[in-house]
Amino acid sequence: MQVNQLGEQALLKRLQRYCLTEAVGDDAALLSVASGQALVVTTDMLIDGVHFSDRTTSATDAGWRAAAANLSDLAAMGAEPLGITVGLSLPGMLEVSWLEGLYQGMVDCLAPFGTPILGGDICRSSVTAIAITALGQVRPEQAIRRSAAQAGDVLLVTGAHGASRAGLELLLHPEQGQGLTEADRSALIQAHQRPQPRLDVVQMLRELGIARVAGMDSSDGLADAVLQICQASRVGAQLERNLIPFPASLTAWISEAQAMDWALYGGEDFELVLCLPRAAAERLVEQLGSAAIIGSITAEPNVLLRDQSGLHPDQPLRLEQGFQHF
Amino acid sequence: MQVNQLGEQALLKRLQRYCLTEAVGDDAALLSVASGQALVVTTDMLIDGVHFSDRTTSATDAGWRAAAANLSDLAAMGAEPLGITVGLSLPGMLEVSWLEGLYQGMVDCLAPFGTPILGGDICRSSVTAIAITALGQVRPEQAIRRSAAQAGDVLLVTGAHGASRAGLELLLHPEQGQGLTEADRSALIQAHQRPQPRLDVVQMLRELGIARVAGMDSSDGLADAVLQICQASRVGAQLERNLIPFPASLTAWISEAQAMDWALYGGEDFELVLCLPRAAAERLVEQLGSAAIIGSITAEPNVLLRDQSGLHPDQPLRLEQGFQHF
Repeated sequence: MQVNQLGEQALLKRLQRYCLTEAVGDDAALLSVASGQALVVTTDMLIDGVHFSDRTTSATDAGWRAAAANLSDLAAMGAEPLGITVGLSLPGMLEVSWLEGLYQGMVDCLAPFGTPILGGDICRSSVTAIAITALGQVRPEQAIRRSAAQAGDVLLVTGAHGASRAGLELLLHPEQGQGLTEADRSALIQAHQRPQPRLDVVQMLRELGIARVAGMDSSDGLADAVLQICQASRVGAQLERNLIPFPASLTAWISEAQAMDWALYGGEDFELVLCLPRAAAERLVEQLGSAAIIGSITAEPNVLLRDQSGLHPDQPLRLEQGFQHF
Repeated sequence: MQVNQLGEQALLKRLQRYCLTEAVGDDAALLSVASGQALVVTTDMLIDGVHFSDRTTSATDAGWRAAAANLSDLAAMGAEPLGITVGLSLPGMLEVSWLEGLYQGMVDCLAPFGTPILGGDICRSSVTAIAITALGQVRPEQAIRRSAAQAGDVLLVTGAHGASRAGLELLLHPEQGQGLTEADRSALIQAHQRPQPRLDVVQMLRELGIARVAGMDSSDGLADAVLQICQASRVGAQLERNLIPFPASLTAWISEAQAMDWALYGGEDFELVLCLPRAAAERLVEQLGSAAIIGSITAEPNVLLRDQSGLHPDQPLRLEQGFQHF
């Protein structure tokens, strides 16, 4: 059954099953923000053929990734999620089952965090586009800002980088990665299709009482995140090449240089890149098995990739190598 | 200059001029919601060729209408606006000046209400799509719900209907409406291109201490609004044909039957359709020159268009005649 066969009213009724019942049915949804907390709001658009495609992404995976990207933006602000709204434009010929898959994928990703879909809008277009706005809350003094990094802070990543890029490669070119085990292969694909927003890190920062932390997420790549933070904070950074974690399985497939390139510029790993005092960072690494300290923030504004082993020369990181939308 | 010539970073920098400075530059924007107020959130998508087109809409008009439609949804909830986010997908060939016009139009509409653009997202697509999420606040007990109409309430509209549909007709067929004065013609076109969200009505309801009010806006048509309210409240309504206000100038151009059709089904007038006790409604009409009581809510679930003059038979209103997106 296609969308234009079902009709708008019946379609809305089907999609409302995935939404918070008390929120839909009015011109807007009502929501409480806890006293003393600031509202956090972030918007992302995903376009068929640009951010997802039938070749690499099922409807449920597209829904999952759309929700995950937005929850990751909330995590990157140190916020707790309150809900999302979904604006959809789609061709009349689209299968209703695809749409239901999309919503199911969003709900699957949101459910562990108790985050509802608050409603949205749906309209006709020649291209499927998904616009998600995610709402969260944070005590203003606990918000994670890009501009708050200080010289002397260490740089910490909450997990390995490059897995999402590797998974995409395997989806586009299944003949590749013959040296990988089946388990490694599916773990890399999973990293691309079902990224995990690191809201657990936000929770851990609260539990450890770590308040003074700057940073952002690595959705546009690790290098991009470090550069954005340094630019916003008017500082520099030194990254130690051998400390940047990438999935061990990659060495059975590609060169170390290629793996480093994917880790730095691949994007969509949705980890957090944090700047904080060393003592706090070490406590965080101890609690989060996946995290690693990869370098430090410097007063000198250059952003350098260094190699203490002396194998590679110092290499400045540049924004232009990151993902550009145009 | 086209978007793909300017590049993403430079484009973002240009568009940030239209945004609240302290809100942009992080993964998400921070915003305060006043204590005791609920957050109100609404999302709308606008697609090139569906909701606006170069034939009838300049860039600034498209921006104005996009912002106005969202502020109208907030007014329809009885809320005060806090800000909007803008998700944009657009072809690389789009002129940068068109985009700047779009943002200028949004800012022009938002400025009188002190409402900022909080940020958003921008990405590439073959079709220009604008996804706006508007945020507002309201004391929960003062929220205007569709489901709160009661038998015995009167039905009130905050202004004339049919003007936007008439303006669209004049834009599509400039040879029409020869009987109109230039002033009337441009007032109708203005109604289509620059609708006014009725946030002034929300303010007036507060000043008059009117809390018990149900309703919604008439963006999808007056008939649609009455039917949606009746369905949500499990009541019916009787509308008196001769009380429904449409622009007087229309009678110099089209038949009364055609004018009534546009008033009921034309849509996009962005007035509020409210249900409230008669005494409160009369005070509101007294304060708002444009408002009119057009009928009443009944326990009997039918929605009827009546004519006390006896010229027309009773006519049931049907949702199917309203605007369907598919």
